[in-house]
Amino acid sequence: MEQKETGLNRITEYQQLVDDTLKGRSYGAHPRELYEPIEYIMSLGGKRMRPVLVLMACEFFGGDVKNALHASIAVELFHNFTLVHDDIMDKAPLRRGKQTVHVKWNDNIAILSGDAMMVRAYQELCKTDVAQLPALLEIFSDTAAKVCEGQQLDMNYERVSKVPIPNYIKMIELKTAVLLGGALKMGALTGGAREEDAQQLYNFGKHIGIAFQLQDDILDVYADAEKFGKQKGGDIIANKKTYLLLKAMEMAETNRYLKEELQLWIAAPHFDAKEKVEAVTNIYNFLNVKELARAEMKKQYAAAMACLKGIPVAEEKKNALIAFADSLMVREV
Amino acid sequence: MEQKETGLNRITEYQQLVDDTLKGRSYGAHPRELYEPIEYIMSLGGKRMRPVLVLMACEFFGGDVKNALHASIAVELFHNFTLVHDDIMDKAPLRRGKQTVHVKWNDNIAILSGDAMMVRAYQELCKTDVAQLPALLEIFSDTAAKVCEGQQLDMNYERVSKVPIPNYIKMIELKTAVLLGGALKMGALTGGAREEDAQQLYNFGKHIGIAFQLQDDILDVYADAEKFGKQKGGDIIANKKTYLLLKAMEMAETNRYLKEELQLWIAAPHFDAKEKVEAVTNIYNFLNVKELARAEMKKQYAAAMACLKGIPVAEEKKNALIAFADSLMVREV
Repeated sequence: MEQKETGLNRITEYQQLVDDTLKGRSYGAHPRELYEPIEYIMSLGGKRMRPVLVLMACEFFGGDVKNALHASIAVELFHNFTLVHDDIMDKAPLRRGKQTVHVKWNDNIAILSGDAMMVRAYQELCKTDVAQLPALLEIFSDTAAKVCEGQQLDMNYERVSKVPIPNYIKMIELKTAVLLGGALKMGALTGGAREEDAQQLYNFGKHIGIAFQLQDDILDVYADAEKFGKQKGGDIIANKKTYLLLKAMEMAETNRYLKEELQLWIAAPHFDAKEKVEAVTNIYNFLNVKELARAEMKKQYAAAMACLKGIPVAEEKKNALIAFADSLMVREV
Repeated sequence: MEQKETGLNRITEYQQLVDDTLKGRSYGAHPRELYEPIEYIMSLGGKRMRPVLVLMACEFFGGDVKNALHASIAVELFHNFTLVHDDIMDKAPLRRGKQTVHVKWNDNIAILSGDAMMVRAYQELCKTDVAQLPALLEIFSDTAAKVCEGQQLDMNYERVSKVPIPNYIKMIELKTAVLLGGALKMGALTGGAREEDAQQLYNFGKHIGIAFQLQDDILDVYADAEKFGKQKGGDIIANKKTYLLLKAMEMAETNRYLKEELQLWIAAPHFDAKEKVEAVTNIYNFLNVKELARAEMKKQYAAAMACLKGIPVAEEKKNALIAFADSLMVREV
């Protein structure tokens, strides 16, 4: 327990370091229309999960966090760039409770300032010591390409009626999880890790990322709405293809009545939101998909822990990473 | 004359090398929706001006073009990425006579495959020998950021009534010319040039780029439409803020009649295209703005040649670069 608290305190320190570093960054002065949206999105806050992972991984292998700071900020810039462009594609009005860039300005400005952010991310990364730069660039670009693939798959899956569960897991791996893995691997290398150990930490992050997304799918339906702070059942209302919906669709294949009811709700052009959420939740409950999603989530979490266990670093040094993983997963589901 | 022909033959060889290299590149397999647009835009051809400049600059300083090939392809990938995103912003239906990516697919796919192209550009660049990589990355990212700034200024200028000529020149420098400069500087460094010589070649490219854009402004109005292959006066019809229009607006300030006539044509919601082109061209002719644009163009061309002259490389080796510059500028204006 004490160790866990120490781990969490350390996370807060890392977050502080990231926030302080970001406050000192300027992205460009002129034209304002290009750089103001970057300052805006970067100042909206968030948990700074990815840059913290870079720093943690560096220290985990005995490195000095100063050597990981550029990679850390680069990852945060890249992540925020993907948010700006994804929000255009998803026509999202809000991000962290504030207007999205394309709403506050317009689509063109969101496209272009997003592009400029990606360039700034590479520029930040390139300030890293040249001895480590090629390896970091390789992971960074490889991860960035995978994130694009994941976003495209997500958009593709919106337009098809069925998505097999393994394809869904692959999509969330690419869209969300590889960036956690990439952040950890980059940090590991700045900390002097061997390639194979850095790769194990990448896999740890990947599995945690998948588990985290599965938890998100569950929380949308089953979380205490007040605690969670989001509209309950938002995914159901929007027919979002979550693990729960896909699993329910798969299982309903052999039950004509359930299949028809689920299809009716999905196809309904007009409906009472509360009624739809209740009806679909009832189907989920009947089919027990929450338990199946939890089982998959736990499997991924266990796989993550197995990866961490395999790394030849003193066990007590693993506490911060375990505390981090647990801080993502603690919410009751 | 013979030297010039040799220079032009060499350009054709460089183009061939770029095209052959591009034919051997694959950008990714899955999902198709992400990578097909990249293959499409990269196969539409074009003069391959920028990658050719990288190769020419390398050989100019006695380097082996093999060492410049990755930078060359990276620059072409980056350039095509900007075309894909600019075409969304400009709502352009056609590119090189074919449907633009956002029309052939959709805006979201154009945003995302553009993003993936930028990542692929960095990945291509990172295959360069590590000894040269940091310097190349610095120029590449610096240029990329400037191109974004130029595109933003171009969009800003669409929405204001007046743009001072120096601001216009700065905008085309950022949007168009620095990429020619950056391509040359990257090539120069792969060829073993000293920093100051590489910078001179950058400035050569920058001035050629500005001259080229000014020529484009003139050709829109004064070119033999058949030879030029574009709609004559397209810029006039669209109220595009070219050097000619901005100069005419500036000069008409002191001539109330001309100012009003120009304003009427610019503000007219409905008009006969041929009539508008004729009327505005008459104003241009009366104010002699074509000659002023040519004078600025020649000034930029001369500045480019002065930069080239200052580089301590055997004069005969400069012929290929001069032939290249002239091949951009030969069209009668």
